[in-house]
This record gives sequence, structure tokens and C-alpha cells, in this order.
Amino acid sequence: MAIITLMTDFGIKDGNVGVMKGVMLGICDSAKIVDLSHSISPQNIREAAFVLEKSWGYFPAGTIHVIVVDPGVGTGRRPIAALIDGHYFICPDNGVLTMVYDRADRTKTHIEIIELNQKRYWLPVVSHVFHGRDIFSPSAAHLANGVKLQQLGSVITDPQRIDFPNPVTTQTGWKGEVVHIDHFGNIATNLREEELIDSSNHRILIKLNDNEINGLVKTFGDRPPGELIALFGSTGNLIVSEVNGNAAMRLGTRIGDVVEVKKLD
Amino acid sequence: MAIITLMTDFGIKDGNVGVMKGVMLGICDSAKIVDLSHSISPQNIREAAFVLEKSWGYFPAGTIHVIVVDPGVGTGRRPIAALIDGHYFICPDNGVLTMVYDRADRTKTHIEIIELNQKRYWLPVVSHVFHGRDIFSPSAAHLANGVKLQQLGSVITDPQRIDFPNPVTTQTGWKGEVVHIDHFGNIATNLREEELIDSSNHRILIKLNDNEINGLVKTFGDRPPGELIALFGSTGNLIVSEVNGNAAMRLGTRIGDVVEVKKLD
Amino acid sequence: MAIITLMTDFGIKDGNVGVMKGVMLGICDSAKIVDLSHSISPQNIREAAFVLEKSWGYFPAGTIHVIVVDPGVGTGRRPIAALIDGHYFICPDNGVLTMVYDRADRTKTHIEIIELNQKRYWLPVVSHVFHGRDIFSPSAAHLANGVKLQQLGSVITDPQRIDFPNPVTTQTGWKGEVVHIDHFGNIATNLREEELIDSSNHRILIKLNDNEINGLVKTFGDRPPGELIALFGSTGNLIVSEVNGNAAMRLGTRIGDVVEVKKLD
Repeated sequence: MAIITLMTDFGIKDGNVGVMKGVMLGICDSAKIVDLSHSISPQNIREAAFVLEKSWGYFPAGTIHVIVVDPGVGTGRRPIAALIDGHYFICPDNGVLTMVYDRADRTKTHIEIIELNQKRYWLPVVSHVFHGRDIFSPSAAHLANGVKLQQLGSVITDPQRIDFPNPVTTQTGWKGEVVHIDHFGNIATNLREEELIDSSNHRILIKLNDNEINGLVKTFGDRPPGELIALFGSTGNLIVSEVNGNAAMRLGTRIGDVVEVKKLD
Repeated sequence: MAIITLMTDFGIKDGNVGVMKGVMLGICDSAKIVDLSHSISPQNIREAAFVLEKSWGYFPAGTIHVIVVDPGVGTGRRPIAALIDGHYFICPDNGVLTMVYDRADRTKTHIEIIELNQKRYWLPVVSHVFHGRDIFSPSAAHLANGVKLQQLGSVITDPQRIDFPNPVTTQTGWKGEVVHIDHFGNIATNLREEELIDSSNHRILIKLNDNEINGLVKTFGDRPPGELIALFGSTGNLIVSEVNGNAAMRLGTRIGDVVEVKKLD
Repeated sequence: MAIITLMTDFGIKDGNVGVMKGVMLGICDSAKIVDLSHSISPQNIREAAFVLEKSWGYFPAGTIHVIVVDPGVGTGRRPIAALIDGHYFICPDNGVLTMVYDRADRTKTHIEIIELNQKRYWLPVVSHVFHGRDIFSPSAAHLANGVKLQQLGSVITDPQRIDFPNPVTTQTGWKGEVVHIDHFGNIATNLREEELIDSSNHRILIKLNDNEINGLVKTFGDRPPGELIALFGSTGNLIVSEVNGNAAMRLGTRIGDVVEVKKLD
């Protein structure tokens, strides 16, 4: 029994996600299909990359992750499949896997990537505008059925990557930026716990959108409702929140806004 | 193992879709339940009919499609089940299957329809306002368990149909209307590829909401972001889009707006 | 094969619900996971309690219901699991099960509750902010695998409860309040069919937000579109609706607004 996860920017009203599941179940009726998100902002490859990176590792090895955020559908961009750290990834070659590649590079994990070009594993008719249905879903279902990665296409070694901003150290601390705003209005930055680890030995000040937050707390309930707090989120990223409120709306925060962490002593 | 698809106008916040699944799994615990959409506009039978028509054919034969967009719940409107082209459909008799019937008529496919009136396949208590839970879900689950269509009720031959606007040919081309606007703001018309097939031999002009678009492209990425384009969507309908943008918001388009295609030579 | 239902206030865009499913399927790959709702208003324990109460009884015995609306995550509030009437409930001890306890009390049903404190059934690393992933999901999956409730923790007898407003009888009838507004704008009150049962022998008048509605109807289609009606909903609560419209938007109704039912003779 294989698990297939789905992430798209399709929304949930038009039936397109259901159609992908119909195609997959028609090929592999034992697949367990799990929705990761279908509310990625339209064409937002960076957001998809972020949500994927914090999610895929919580699935068991062998899981097949299908990501269809695909502004280049029907153009020359390649459809690809990758095997990394025991997980399969199927998506357009547009950089959405950059963070997965980067992590594999850091841990010296082998990466195997193929261009999907074996049309016998696609739907018989392929539209110019819905490869999620016609290429990615059937390819995932064939993998789930036991077809080998190498049967689906030819090895490539030059996948697209996109640049993600890296935090920098400053004279007084660190400077990063906002990389995600969640459903609650929690503001996730690219400053990570392991990089700020010595912050636990300092009093620190967090600056974001002309607001200053003194020190870190462990969890939301450590402060009364309405208070702005900074803490490490469940993925190890530094986040700024309003207790029982929406920090991003309150501060007018947007993706890319600068965050500074200053050591006070 | 049977697949059951669900389409409703219930939204996803109140637990009603989950309740339907609970009822179904209580009767047939091996069913695979797939959400098609729960964001059909309230009481919008036409929208449900359109989403169903472009979706059901991608599921394997034997799939049971449950559609609950049901402004007449608890009145005299009949609950029905149909077997068409190897697929089952369970819904109120309010015309939501019109496009499925029409396609079957065109292809001379046999249609079998019954009125659900065998109460032993319903929940013991039937409310006046939630037949999705009390009649349609248990009926679907019993079908999934192997109960025959004919056991669920009595044959009828006069199902409700609703009128869908048909495109017309004009002296200079074709005239149709907008039938769906998707999550991306793509505007789907009822002009179809097979009807416009000779358009490929002509230069054409598409007119919609006082905007003119010259010619067709194959896919979104053929033009730069922000440009208005016309192309055939994944279901063969002529669609109008803005590359990486929202055409419907930009043009103020609404369902029913007129679309004209003119041959220029 | 166990069924696990999920209810959270996480929304559906960030992948967190998918992550919980990944954790559960990694422990128990045969689990059937059903979404009840992920659109509970942030931190709204009362809303979660209401949606749970009208839903759980439609699932088969043995179902495991996981509820994560958890403003106190990471503080001293206890994670708990309960066995009530053949159903399992896993959630923070914040009163979200109050209506389940109350029903069990009314029907003299045995309640068994444990505090989840056996860390070998949790993820190895537990964050301060996402116990849905780190404690509740793995606990549910272990239950699904056949682990006994008592193995997951120690019995407690003092679970948190929250106060829900009760309707009162007045000289001329009943007074209650609005407890839920659904996706259609239907307004659910805490006045229940069994309490108003003798209303069927009286002409009654319903007052809400300075509007008066004469008498009850059986279902929406009993009156023309646009008319305000009162009826008993599918859960037995008195609801106020606009036929094919949105009563809550029309009346400006909010949770907690007062509803009066007067006997006219």
C-alpha cells in the first residue's frame, strides 16, 4: 500500500483535485491519497517549496509526493520525478524541490532525478494545460503500483533550483526575512533555532515592521491574549505571533519583510 | 472495493461532509471516498452539473458519484440513483444530471434510473432537511456493498432536465456564453473545441466584456504574465485567461456573459 | 481497520493537517482518516464542541475522534483520551468534550478518561506548539493499532468542562440563544425540538434580531426563495433560515444573540 500526497494551487471548488484522484485510483486502487494543501497561492512556487519542506519528512519512507504548482505547464519545462531519502517527488522541474535538494546536499544524501518522458505511463491524451491530471497523477499511480523510477524516464542531473534568501549575521545579531504567514497569522521567518542557538544565553530583541519584541517565549499560552510574542515554531523557525490573535494582520506583515534579532548583552 | 465521490454545496466548516462519510463507512467500511467539491455555490445546480460533467469520466467504471445540491430537500422532489456508462449517480432529481443524460443520448448509451424509495436502505430516522446524510449516503454505501440498483427503488423514465444554453453560429463565427469561472479566474465558455475546429484555419478574434483577444494560444506560458489569452482548456472548452493573473476579476466577468468568436478571414 | 476523524482550527493551506495524517499513517497504515472540519474559528473551543456533538454519533462504534483546538498547547493543560459510548476522543483537556460528557451523564453512560502521559506513544521529539502532530496524532494511531486506552496514560476523573448557555422557559414560551451559524447562513439556536414539543399544539412566534417569524415549517422548499423561516434542523435544533438565501447576513446575527419563542394561544 502506497501513500501519495498532493499539493497544488488548484483550490478546492472546481473538482480538479478530485479528477487527479480519480486518475490515480483508476491505475492503483490501493493508494492512500493525502491532501497536503490545495491553497498554495496561484503560481507561487516558493510557498509550495516551503510547505513541502516542513511536511514531507513526517510521512513514512516510500511516500510519493505530487506537487503541481505549474505556471509553465505545456511549455518546455520538464516534468520530473525524484527519489531522495526514500521519498518520491513528482512535479514540474521549476525549482519547487530546491529545499529538498539543499537538505540532501547538506546531509550528503543521494539524489536521483529523472525526466518523465515515457508516455506509456501517462494518460493517452495529454492536454496543454493540465499535466497534473494527464502526466503527474498517472506517473505517481504507476510508481505506487511498483513501476521503478527508471522506467518512467531518463536520468537528469541539472534540475532547476531557485534562490531562497539566507539569513545573515550582523554586528549585533542576525537579519532574516519573513518566509511564510500561516492560517493563524503567525509569521514564520527564515531564522532557525539551530542558528540562533546561543541566543538562549543572551537577552534578545526581535524587530519586525517597526515593532520590537523582547525575548523569546516557549509557547503561545505563556503570555496573555493580545500580546505579541516571538518563539520557535514547530519546524524550528523563529516565528512572531499574537497570542489568540493574528500577528500578520496586526502588523501588516508581508512575505519578504525584514526581521532583525539583536543581542542585548 | 468501491470508490464514492462526493459533491455538495455544504462548505467544509460545519462537519456535514464528515457526517456523510461516517454514515457511509458505518455501512461499507472498505469504500474509498473522494471529495469532488464542497464549494459549489449554494443551491447552484448548474454549477454542480458543470463540475460533475468535466470530472466523472476520469474515475474508473463502477464509481458511485453522490451529488447533494438540493434546494428541494424534504419537498416532493424525488431522490434518484442512475446507472450510466458503468458509473452510478445518486442525487436529488433536480436536473443536476442533465449533462450526463445528454452525453448518453448523443452516444446512444443506455440510461437506467430509479427513484430511491426502499427505506430499508436509508437511515432509520430521516430528517426533512438533510437527505445527504439520511438517504443519499446510506444508499451509496449499500451500492458499494453490492446491493443492486433495482433493489434501491423503482424505475423511472422521466427524470428532470434543465436547459443549458447552447452556442450558436453567427454570420461571422460563433456566439456562446460564460459557464464557469475557476479558482484561478479562468473563464470557461460553452464554446467547444470540436465546434470551433475549423477555427484553426482562420485568424480569429474573441470578444468578451468589451475586450478583444486576437487568436488562440496553446497554453498559459506562451505569453508573458499579465496578458489576456484565449485557449482550449483541459476539458475542451474555450477559456479566456490572464497569464499568472485573474481574468474574471480583471474583466468583471460573470456567469452568463456573452462570448463571441469572429473569423477574420 | 479503524476510522480516525480530525477536527482542528488549522485551516487547510499550510500542510499541518497533512502532516498529522503522515504521522498517523506512519504508525497505522490501515487507518481511514476522515476530516470533520479544519475551519473551526481560531481557538474557538465552543464551536468545536458544537460541531463535534452533532457529528460523532454518525460514525460507527470504535471510531477515534481527534480534536485539536488548543490555545493552551505547551502549557500545563493536560492532553487526554476518553472512551465514551464506544467512541474514542483524543484532545486537549480544555472543555471541548463538555457536550459529550453531558450527554453521557444524561444517559448514565460510563465515561473513562486518561491523561496522555506515556511518552513512548508520542513522537520522539515533542515541540511546545504542535501537539496535534507530536502527541495527539501518534496516540490516535496507536489506539487504531490496538493499543489499549489504559496503556496511553493514567485515569483522571476531573476533566475540564465549560458552561454552555441553557434555554429557559418564560411566561409566554422559551428564550434561548444563537449557538452556530453554518456555511449557508442558517442560524442554529440552543432551543431543541424535544423541549418545544408542545409548540406543535400552539401557534408560535419566533423573535430574533428584531425580526418576527410566524410559525414553523418542515423544510426550506415549503416557502418561496427570500422568505425568512423557522424550522427544526437535522440535529433537532431550532434554526432560522432564509430560503435560498443567507439569514445570518441578512439579519446581522451573531453567536450569542437572543432568540425568543412565544406561544400565541
